[in-house]
Amino acid sequence: MHFGKFSVSTQAQMQFIDITAQAEQAVREIGVADGILYLFNPHTTAGLTVNEGYDPDVQHDLLGVFQRVIPNSYPYRHAEGNSPSHILATLTGSSLTVILADNKLQLGTWQRIFFCEYDGPRNRHIMWKVMVG
Amino acid sequence: MHFGKFSVSTQAQMQFIDITAQAEQAVREIGVADGILYLFNPHTTAGLTVNEGYDPDVQHDLLGVFQRVIPNSYPYRHAEGNSPSHILATLTGSSLTVILADNKLQLGTWQRIFFCEYDGPRNRHIMWKVMVG
Amino acid sequence: MHFGKFSVSTQAQMQFIDITAQAEQAVREIGVADGILYLFNPHTTAGLTVNEGYDPDVQHDLLGVFQRVIPNSYPYRHAEGNSPSHILATLTGSSLTVILADNKLQLGTWQRIFFCEYDGPRNRHIMWKVMVG
Repeated sequence: MHFGKFSVSTQAQMQFIDITAQAEQAVREIGVADGILYLFNPHTTAGLTVNEGYDPDVQHDLLGVFQRVIPNSYPYRHAEGNSPSHILATLTGSSLTVILADNKLQLGTWQRIFFCEYDGPRNRHIMWKVMVG
Repeated sequence: MHFGKFSVSTQAQMQFIDITAQAEQAVREIGVADGILYLFNPHTTAGLTVNEGYDPDVQHDLLGVFQRVIPNSYPYRHAEGNSPSHILATLTGSSLTVILADNKLQLGTWQRIFFCEYDGPRNRHIMWKVMVG
Repeated sequence: MHFGKFSVSTQAQMQFIDITAQAEQAVREIGVADGILYLFNPHTTAGLTVNEGYDPDVQHDLLGVFQRVIPNSYPYRHAEGNSPSHILATLTGSSLTVILADNKLQLGTWQRIFFCEYDGPRNRHIMWKVMVG
């Protein structure tokens, strides 16, 4: 029952937030050396991804192209006006798994875990769980 | 070995089907309170996603934009003529994980789990498994 | 601690490599009959997907449309010039789970697991883990 959540406050309509440190802290606190970390985003206009964290221009380019590829002017029916955010939620995905081995999340050298805000700014939360084995 | 599958019949060429109730029933039948639910789509022209289930216009907008963004007239080589369906399968993803805690799938307030049909109508099935912990 | 990695050498800038046999070998070597196979791609310009493996034209069509949809000429800021590869990494996803039951990965009839190279040719590796249950 290694299960919990942590909060993220976003400051822009579209923004990537690096949540690697919060994920690492959750794993450290429960003291599990080997297993799987599961992250789950419970919001329908946001997502979770793993990508480069070193150069913030990578995040800038992703969000810019997402806004260009997903049309703003399509005859959307959803009355809230945030259909592009829902579309990006599905394209990005709501769940991800990271291997935990030797007390460490096994991310690649340049990889960081990001919460993807597509309809902010908002107060959001991310759910996590660790399975041991 | 909490493992099984359930069926879905789709009625259109492209359609989202809410499979949350079937996923919840699988979890309820095996009586596991805490763990992870794994869903896996074994078809190559379909996918699985989590998104808003309250307003069906969200699904309408997703499918409309998918058909607009993925070209119909590209010089596709795949002779079956359903390459856009295969492309959407990869963009949507074939596997997802949902946290199970306190006897409940930990979905967000507006979230539902959808089977995404991209080459219907067909009889499809979804595989599931629960790991306890 | 059923955990390891295997290598993949890619020969093109964009290429799908079928890694199903390597995944099956990892599962066979540890002799687990039931559980979950986790695959994780530690690179930020690559991804993992499940799609049709029978007709290589499917892979050709996916990569062709990806290159058409993700613009080459956008005012990208990331100085390395490979922003489209990072974008495709997020759209494809870095982690996936496959159900293991009765000594077999429960893939569909036409499904294969692919490593998606978006910035090759390079020597890459894929991490795997199996949880028993």
